[in-house]
Amino acid sequence: MEPVALAQALIRCPSVTPADAGALDVLASALGGLGFDCTLLSFGQAPDGPIRNLFATIGSGGPHFAFAGHTDVVPEGAGWSVDPYAGQIRDGLLFGRGAADMKGAIAAMVSAAAAHVARGAPGTLSFLITGDEEGPATHGTDELLRWMESHGHRPDMCLVGEPSSAHDLGDMMKIGRRGSLNAWIAVKGAQGHVAYPDRADNPIRRLLPILTDLQARHLDSGTDWFTPSNLEITDLEVGNPATNVIPAEAKARLNIRFNDSHRGEDLANWIRETVAKHAPSAEVTIRISGEAFLTEPGALSTLIADAVQAETGRTPELSTTGGTSDARFIRRICPVVEFGLPGQSMHKVDELASVADIEALARIYDRLLQSVFAPA
Amino acid sequence: MEPVALAQALIRCPSVTPADAGALDVLASALGGLGFDCTLLSFGQAPDGPIRNLFATIGSGGPHFAFAGHTDVVPEGAGWSVDPYAGQIRDGLLFGRGAADMKGAIAAMVSAAAAHVARGAPGTLSFLITGDEEGPATHGTDELLRWMESHGHRPDMCLVGEPSSAHDLGDMMKIGRRGSLNAWIAVKGAQGHVAYPDRADNPIRRLLPILTDLQARHLDSGTDWFTPSNLEITDLEVGNPATNVIPAEAKARLNIRFNDSHRGEDLANWIRETVAKHAPSAEVTIRISGEAFLTEPGALSTLIADAVQAETGRTPELSTTGGTSDARFIRRICPVVEFGLPGQSMHKVDELASVADIEALARIYDRLLQSVFAPA
Ligand SMILES: [Zn+2]
Ligand SMILES: [Zn+2]
Repeated sequence: MEPVALAQALIRCPSVTPADAGALDVLASALGGLGFDCTLLSFGQAPDGPIRNLFATIGSGGPHFAFAGHTDVVPEGAGWSVDPYAGQIRDGLLFGRGAADMKGAIAAMVSAAAAHVARGAPGTLSFLITGDEEGPATHGTDELLRWMESHGHRPDMCLVGEPSSAHDLGDMMKIGRRGSLNAWIAVKGAQGHVAYPDRADNPIRRLLPILTDLQARHLDSGTDWFTPSNLEITDLEVGNPATNVIPAEAKARLNIRFNDSHRGEDLANWIRETVAKHAPSAEVTIRISGEAFLTEPGALSTLIADAVQAETGRTPELSTTGGTSDARFIRRICPVVEFGLPGQSMHKVDELASVADIEALARIYDRLLQSVFAPA
Repeated sequence: MEPVALAQALIRCPSVTPADAGALDVLASALGGLGFDCTLLSFGQAPDGPIRNLFATIGSGGPHFAFAGHTDVVPEGAGWSVDPYAGQIRDGLLFGRGAADMKGAIAAMVSAAAAHVARGAPGTLSFLITGDEEGPATHGTDELLRWMESHGHRPDMCLVGEPSSAHDLGDMMKIGRRGSLNAWIAVKGAQGHVAYPDRADNPIRRLLPILTDLQARHLDSGTDWFTPSNLEITDLEVGNPATNVIPAEAKARLNIRFNDSHRGEDLANWIRETVAKHAPSAEVTIRISGEAFLTEPGALSTLIADAVQAETGRTPELSTTGGTSDARFIRRICPVVEFGLPGQSMHKVDELASVADIEALARIYDRLLQSVFAPA
């Protein structure tokens, strides 16, 4: 199984979330050809769905190892120097939307799976692939995991193929992610003329101390594996065109990236209390898009590090930086680590993965499977 | 000279700034008919001009009394129960845009002027009427006063016909106005992803303490004739649609209405220094639209109060509240007081003035002219 050819075939499906564009059929056909039992699942309805997901599994009993990932991609955007969906190779570089994030890694997983099947090792190998990671993720991995649970599929450990490497293949893996929370605050007042402030009520007078208090809190100094939690006010909006008018409403939005010393709900309560102290009638909307989680360095990260070291000579840094990923769902059921291609070009124009990296990643995944499924 | 008929004729000219729509021709024709020497002046160019202004004068020598005002009106807006430009009278109420602010008062001035001319009193009576009071006021009274200066016209005292009465005709006159200043503050930062705050620079972190410091200052406790100065933050703008992005710029706008214990430039310097303390590279734009001014209670306000008392039985409160008016320009050359119709309906839908009030105002202005021009 040649991973680069499969990566090209996947890139040629313009699977911008929520479109699948045949990507999961390409993948199911490759895995089916290896003897995997493939289940294509469609979840959700418009506007966030329907979303196609694939569960593919082979073998039985333990250990049960799972590869996880997504075939959907972010929109290509303007300014490419090549066709973003042609899967073109130039000077040893495979160009295309999804080359790094993460069709290249999925192809490497399939290549490693082919070798695993050929070895006839015992145990279970599964693929959890969604078409809704770059979108709202409502009808993707989260729902796929619930379907797996109700059908008795429970991996013992999982590798997500996100582009975790920073500069060179193997220099970093992610053993956890910070949690993320967004809050929208709307303070109401009473509109009026600036010349008659007694007849108006400026909501900005109350919004300022709210934001100052929120900004002032030292959330923590970081934990063993996490950098300090951080709050950023990301938007302010009043929208008052008139210089002589006191506005009726003032709004702000903030984001907190928090480590494993916080729970999203505690932070949400703190925000609500801080707002209520200054503006009891303000509206607060809070969305926790993921809790902080950590797969303590252990068996899985050691196996991955050993495979990386053997293939590249590098010792991957164990990191918890970056945005969120579907690992936040998978951590509910088993240890999960993210390891994949270098991520510099992800979500950008001229996204690419080197052919050599894709092939090396396939060999790293192969080494990993050999260790995982080695006779005890 | 019937003031209500003239007010109707003026209302029927839809003179929304900068349009004149014939309003000054109606007025010049009425004053010309009384023997006034009328000069129609056109100042400025697009987009703020050209603006028509009228200087009309009769007589010679002292005393030189001036009526001042404007024939332009604010846009009618939606929701009227009558045609805003029909000059319709219903149940003793004259409806129309400008009825209160201030075509009714201008008609009353002309009516008083007719009686004055008929009396053959000595001295000079002038009209300073602009078509740019509700607009930027760049090519209105300010420029008219400079023209008058260069042509040797210098009144000894002036009455502006703004709708100064609060509830009932004669309950209030304005002997001064607060100054007004607007400031625009733009703090620059560096855009980035919320997951990597070290690589970004959130400008909101610096804007917040700027605004908090500005808001916290106690400007003063009021002066003999003025309420305390007041600062209102009137707008906040970031315009960042992405929840995971730290924005590159954060902007705010504020207004200060200040009394005669401050000069606009001192306040401007304080704003610039406060901004520079927290964000040395921020951009600050400040516009002082008028300094605070006061015509100390004295001869002019006493003559007006006496005329009001004789006509209505009310003693007008001497006030400095409210927005700005063209009196801020006229105060440069002579004592100026504002006295006109009740202002509750000004700038609103179904603007109106009662026929009885317009007629009573004409009699008050007439009494005032009789006192001003009484033989010593
Ligand atoms: Zn991804
Ligand atoms: Zn006015």
